[in-house]
Amino acid sequence: MNAAGRHLIAELEGCEPRLLSDVAALRRHLEEAARTAGGTVLGSQFHRFDPIGASGVVLLAESHVSIHTWPEWRYAAVDVFGCGARMVPAAAVRHIATALRASDIRWLEVTRGVSPEGPVPPWRHERRVGVGRPHVMEVAARAPESR
Amino acid sequence: MNAAGRHLIAELEGCEPRLLSDVAALRRHLEEAARTAGGTVLGSQFHRFDPIGASGVVLLAESHVSIHTWPEWRYAAVDVFGCGARMVPAAAVRHIATALRASDIRWLEVTRGVSPEGPVPPWRHERRVGVGRPHVMEVAARAPESR
Repeated sequence: MNAAGRHLIAELEGCEPRLLSDVAALRRHLEEAARTAGGTVLGSQFHRFDPIGASGVVLLAESHVSIHTWPEWRYAAVDVFGCGARMVPAAAVRHIATALRASDIRWLEVTRGVSPEGPVPPWRHERRVGVGRPHVMEVAARAPESR
Repeated sequence: MNAAGRHLIAELEGCEPRLLSDVAALRRHLEEAARTAGGTVLGSQFHRFDPIGASGVVLLAESHVSIHTWPEWRYAAVDVFGCGARMVPAAAVRHIATALRASDIRWLEVTRGVSPEGPVPPWRHERRVGVGRPHVMEVAARAPESR
């Protein structure tokens, strides 16, 4: 094993604003997303902000999923950290994007951890994200879920 | 406001192994780290793995702090997401690194969010992290805490 896991930092844009303050639904979406991605939910913490917005974190046996929302920007900041070969963090990001009706997602994949035998792996970035010109990946009906 | 916040992805290496499975202490360290950095704790979730290792997330009014540990590698994966001008995520990372007696930390800073008026900001990385040759920042007695 060369890495502790993969950590996806995802920007969800063009979300449906009313969905971004509904903490009960957000909790359900994140927990479902984690299971869809092969994760095991250990617990979660969510908070509704006044007047709008929400934050939540779901702790997994494989690490975590988090969300912080800005309904006024139709924006949600998501991160999914998954360790182990079974978990597919990108599937969790896509599940959440679909649930929030995001028009676009951008993400950055960071390989976490160290090898006990080799050198520390360098930071790696998804090729989809170009410096100064972020790649926009459509999450539309044309793009089937990877589930 | 051009960004929702700053998200630090931090690798803590050379930690004291016995500290990495003590969930009560880890919870205290993360909550203290969040407050040190100017954050407000809303709640937390921690889990102790068998036989070793732990995971935890602290939900903040300003986003979150998380930790996942691999005592066998003397390694902890930390991330600190802080929104708002008051919070200084780097101070939280340094606090945790000191508490776990990490010999080295590496981090990546990602600017999160979108501007409601301008284009989406590109991904940005701390200059301390070089591709293929990760910069190692010492956390030693010589490097005073920024607190």
